[in-house]
Amino acid sequence: MAYELHHWPTLQGHGEFVRLALEAAGAPYIDVARGSELSGQGVPAMMRLLQDRKAVLPPFAPPFLKDGDLVIGQSAAILHHLAPQLKLVARSEQSRVWTQQIQLTIADVAAEAHDTHHPGGDHLSREEHPPEALRRAQAFCSERLPRYLKWFEHIVTHNPAGSRHLVAGKLSYADLSLFQLIEGLKYTFPKATASVLARTPAIVQLHDRVATLPRVAAYLRSERRLPFSEQGAFRCHPELDVQ
Amino acid sequence: MAYELHHWPTLQGHGEFVRLALEAAGAPYIDVARGSELSGQGVPAMMRLLQDRKAVLPPFAPPFLKDGDLVIGQSAAILHHLAPQLKLVARSEQSRVWTQQIQLTIADVAAEAHDTHHPGGDHLSREEHPPEALRRAQAFCSERLPRYLKWFEHIVTHNPAGSRHLVAGKLSYADLSLFQLIEGLKYTFPKATASVLARTPAIVQLHDRVATLPRVAAYLRSERRLPFSEQGAFRCHPELDVQ
Repeated sequence: MAYELHHWPTLQGHGEFVRLALEAAGAPYIDVARGSELSGQGVPAMMRLLQDRKAVLPPFAPPFLKDGDLVIGQSAAILHHLAPQLKLVARSEQSRVWTQQIQLTIADVAAEAHDTHHPGGDHLSREEHPPEALRRAQAFCSERLPRYLKWFEHIVTHNPAGSRHLVAGKLSYADLSLFQLIEGLKYTFPKATASVLARTPAIVQLHDRVATLPRVAAYLRSERRLPFSEQGAFRCHPELDVQ
Repeated sequence: MAYELHHWPTLQGHGEFVRLALEAAGAPYIDVARGSELSGQGVPAMMRLLQDRKAVLPPFAPPFLKDGDLVIGQSAAILHHLAPQLKLVARSEQSRVWTQQIQLTIADVAAEAHDTHHPGGDHLSREEHPPEALRRAQAFCSERLPRYLKWFEHIVTHNPAGSRHLVAGKLSYADLSLFQLIEGLKYTFPKATASVLARTPAIVQLHDRVATLPRVAAYLRSERRLPFSEQGAFRCHPELDVQ
């Protein structure tokens, strides 16, 4: 039975981490909110599940995944649940915990990058707070971004199974999510990100290898891959790109 | 063998979610960074682990837990790993995933409450951005806080095993974390939180029951419980408490 992925239809957001895993595994899935309302899909179908007053395990917000009777929200929880089925995590409990820890750290970076643009809250446009945003972007680009990317470089170069993957000797959802994180950072802060990546060659290689995996490459070329946009988790504001 | 909890010694932060679980289970643990440097503990012991250049699985930041040879960072990953050992999660895979999803949502609320005070980034004092902070606090108190607490009220009142717990018919780390979240929100936004809690009686009852569990009550009275402070995840700024 196909998985049902529920996420806002016009933005990548955190749903993209889940979508990439489903695509890389070649798993059958329906991207419900992007489907046709005539066939019972679209945003109304997503909202029905989200606002079901009798639901016992309702997710708080998209993205969420319907796997048979199970409905799961929070991208890190979805991936932790899905990964063994998709063979996108090594088998040992230690590897599963480590992969999850990396995913949660990737989510932290994405959240910090997002907040850089929206220090006054997501409901405000950026024109309302340029001085705050600039200060925060400076701190992110000069301190946090290098620190995070160096940590990823450290863990991939110290992987006992080799630096082709983040965890053990096989592709995991953490590799896919790191690819997505780097794509997002390059979109958001192209200069600052390029400057840091020049000093982290192993994660650049990992990113490039993920991009050429046949299923991932086919997905990235397809219309199923939404473009980055100013509504997503990663947004481009050149004036905040501080090298 | 005792668990080793590593976290900054003067603040609750995200380490408090882990500490509460260890305390509620009566598990033996060493709060390393709060120990004496003379006995090989203290902050230097934590930093040695954090900055170990040869580490294969280094956490990005505190809190992290050492469980034998395993070192785990990210409070949600720590709790997911620990909970079966501490008997603080129901056994089924569905319950484990659901408990994790609730924990991640609790972490989201804590992060949003924290960012309310620090829209310009954590390195700035609040005096540097009062207008942004006030706008963000208004949005949080009037929209996000009620929406989150109503979600918790919904899930506890719809628990098929009864509203004494969030998940299944037993105490889980999610119950303990919800207790901590409500404590933190009451400290941060006392008026706004009281106003919302007046309409969510089930989570108030759950909070109060957790506070009276013998081990939790003993812990809260002890010196092991750090007070809330202006360095922690929850900070008190009365001028931002918008009803």
